[in-house]
Amino acid sequence: MHPLMRCDRTRKWALENLAMETQFIISPSNISKHLKELSKIGNLGERLEDGFLRASWSDEETAAMEYIRAQGESAGLQGRYDAVGNLFLSTPFDKEENETSTGEVIQIGSHLDTVPRGGLFDGGAGIVAGLEAILAVVKSEKALKRRLELVIWRGEESGTFTTVFKGSKAAFGILDASCLENVYGGVTLRHAIEGQGYDASLIEQGTATLAQDSIDSIAAHFELHIEQATKLEKDNCDIGVVSSIRGPRRFRITLYGEAAHSGATPMGSKYRSDANLCMAHTIVALDGLCSQHIAGGKDLVQTVGIINTDKAVNARHPEIYESAITKVSPLAYFSLDIRSNNKATLESYTQSALSLIQDKADELSVKVEIERVGSSDPLEQLDPCLQDLLEQSARDLGYSSQRLSSGAGHDVAVVAQQRKSDGTTIPTALVFIPCRKGISHNPMEFATDDAIHKGAMVLAQAIGSIC
Amino acid sequence: MHPLMRCDRTRKWALENLAMETQFIISPSNISKHLKELSKIGNLGERLEDGFLRASWSDEETAAMEYIRAQGESAGLQGRYDAVGNLFLSTPFDKEENETSTGEVIQIGSHLDTVPRGGLFDGGAGIVAGLEAILAVVKSEKALKRRLELVIWRGEESGTFTTVFKGSKAAFGILDASCLENVYGGVTLRHAIEGQGYDASLIEQGTATLAQDSIDSIAAHFELHIEQATKLEKDNCDIGVVSSIRGPRRFRITLYGEAAHSGATPMGSKYRSDANLCMAHTIVALDGLCSQHIAGGKDLVQTVGIINTDKAVNARHPEIYESAITKVSPLAYFSLDIRSNNKATLESYTQSALSLIQDKADELSVKVEIERVGSSDPLEQLDPCLQDLLEQSARDLGYSSQRLSSGAGHDVAVVAQQRKSDGTTIPTALVFIPCRKGISHNPMEFATDDAIHKGAMVLAQAIGSIC
Repeated sequence: MHPLMRCDRTRKWALENLAMETQFIISPSNISKHLKELSKIGNLGERLEDGFLRASWSDEETAAMEYIRAQGESAGLQGRYDAVGNLFLSTPFDKEENETSTGEVIQIGSHLDTVPRGGLFDGGAGIVAGLEAILAVVKSEKALKRRLELVIWRGEESGTFTTVFKGSKAAFGILDASCLENVYGGVTLRHAIEGQGYDASLIEQGTATLAQDSIDSIAAHFELHIEQATKLEKDNCDIGVVSSIRGPRRFRITLYGEAAHSGATPMGSKYRSDANLCMAHTIVALDGLCSQHIAGGKDLVQTVGIINTDKAVNARHPEIYESAITKVSPLAYFSLDIRSNNKATLESYTQSALSLIQDKADELSVKVEIERVGSSDPLEQLDPCLQDLLEQSARDLGYSSQRLSSGAGHDVAVVAQQRKSDGTTIPTALVFIPCRKGISHNPMEFATDDAIHKGAMVLAQAIGSIC
Repeated sequence: MHPLMRCDRTRKWALENLAMETQFIISPSNISKHLKELSKIGNLGERLEDGFLRASWSDEETAAMEYIRAQGESAGLQGRYDAVGNLFLSTPFDKEENETSTGEVIQIGSHLDTVPRGGLFDGGAGIVAGLEAILAVVKSEKALKRRLELVIWRGEESGTFTTVFKGSKAAFGILDASCLENVYGGVTLRHAIEGQGYDASLIEQGTATLAQDSIDSIAAHFELHIEQATKLEKDNCDIGVVSSIRGPRRFRITLYGEAAHSGATPMGSKYRSDANLCMAHTIVALDGLCSQHIAGGKDLVQTVGIINTDKAVNARHPEIYESAITKVSPLAYFSLDIRSNNKATLESYTQSALSLIQDKADELSVKVEIERVGSSDPLEQLDPCLQDLLEQSARDLGYSSQRLSSGAGHDVAVVAQQRKSDGTTIPTALVFIPCRKGISHNPMEFATDDAIHKGAMVLAQAIGSIC
């Protein structure tokens, strides 16, 4: 059986398109051209490595959106901004009037804002690939049963105005209004939105900018993003089909031992209450616990990013600086970031990890304090039909692909959690392409034209199969 | 066989003293009195917890020495300062003229200087106990075949003028003259020595202040010291008979990984080059290696005192402050202090430890740099005859005792390394008494009058058996 047949919805779409022989063509030079033009907007210097700043609702963000709008409109798409300034670039409505139109829309979304000293590709790669994918289908002159729409969300990054997913959340009426008072660059978010000619009142009211029938009409929503990690690069793989988005549980763990003379104090926990040693044993035991769970088939990543280090300007434990080569350490602390794409796994693993930390401390005569510093729930599953579709599209094009979890959140996760009138969620999909060394939120962020082109081709093949 | 008979020298002494029935009596109130008087000299406040500062060759050090001299002389001892200001308080020479005199001397030494904000007991306990032990034997009116002598070495602590064991090294002509230019409190060591009325020229010439025949006449040299660790306290033991003094090998180890997104990067060293995780595995493996060697009967202690922490004012790796909860760490560093009382153990263990560090780094895809930052050799054995003697003395008095290694150096280690004309070394012994929580070099340093009294009693019993 054809893989798309396993799923009711894609079976329907596949049957509709069984006769499809269309090849969608995207010129690699278009990808290069768009990237070159975008690299002149919000750039902090002449070279890519100088980085970018396109703050949320800044002139630079608007200018980048306007460049894409112009490109889309000159190829026949119709652009409109919603009440808060998200941009929707759509195939013409008049095409819907043909007799086969379902009234549905297939979207590809991403963003064009950046973190301060960010790169060109986080968000940008998704918009360029999405635009070219839609234009490729348009140019194929395939009769469209579903409109195609590029969505450029405003203000995805928390790097400006603190809050993440601002535009997409506002579109669905779920952006917490308190963030309007967040300040970046000396102005409030409210002021920035109004400065670009938009209206913060819907955000204040918690009202969606999209009408419910618009939401109900979304047949599928895609996003393409650079991976921001090295799995694809290290596996030499073209396309990542994201199956889920991990959610984190985060902790700060502080261990209290007793200072003692390093030469005079015998080894062993009867004599030494060694915070550093306890920390090392705890981290290794946590690593073992995590490996066990992964071997048991669980999705988990676990990271101790901070050990005994605070910026001097914001030190939580200044006494850490009294440590010495010849002193058994009376204090140690570390951060723990646990993520899973499965909420039950996340909760049960976290429970085991916290017990383990307490047990190790008891065993090694050290006192422990555990502070919870952040958590959010995973998006357990992106749409499985669309995953099959993307995988099949990559296969059709001769590209290598793999399924993987996303460690970072994206606008698509906001869309995935919205309900239609009939109670169903919006089918969503996330495509990853490799980026150099996994670097992101950094001027050294880089993805090749070829990687973006392959991603755009997969998007075109996928939306072309179901539109 | 009586334990002292196992050893030629103590057999001789024991046979000489076989008929000894003398009980040496030390009044606990004398101990209290001396401590009370010393607590008024160089004290930084009214309370013990305010701490002390008696710098090397300061008025305060001299005043403390003068108090002890006055106490000794009023009980019949004779005091004299050597050329650099070490004080020797001896039983009268005229007693040597009795027909049984061997012309030998039995010494008890320690010091009265302190580190800045130090305590009353580091050095002070040894001087008070030594004085009372000698006076107890004198008062017993035992006929002395060997003179008894209390030695108060100048400037033992490196806390002032950087260099350690200054007085005892000068006495034997082995103090490096360059230290005369070291500065503390705005004056050079040379200036401080001259300020107390002594002469730095012998130090410059590398000439001993003690004549060779004085050195040759030392039959035994004892020191009593607070343990500066918690083994005796935790074992509820009265007396530590020190068998050896450990020497250190010290390192700074830096691990270089690669920064990566904590949520997006899969586990395992194919994807993660995690410096913090590699450090934890390395420290745990080192702990296992050390335990193995200890189980195999080796004397070893090993401490990771510093992890990822430098005082901001002197930071070696400022990039450590770019660590984050959500970032796989690209950098970690730690200190390693390895000590043993056996040079061969120290060298072979250090070799194994360094190989292990390299192996772990290779295994976990991390680069490693190892920097050697200090080493000195252990004093492998204090005099075994005197150890037997001290242990027997404790047993005679009904005190608990144990043999242990000293992690810190003491003046007695300088004495132990000196040669007599006949090529033999000076027999030396070190007695430890418990101190509260092992705290030392700290105003909270504390030993009970009872602990010092028991130490003094053991010293009296020991020297009384062989003088």
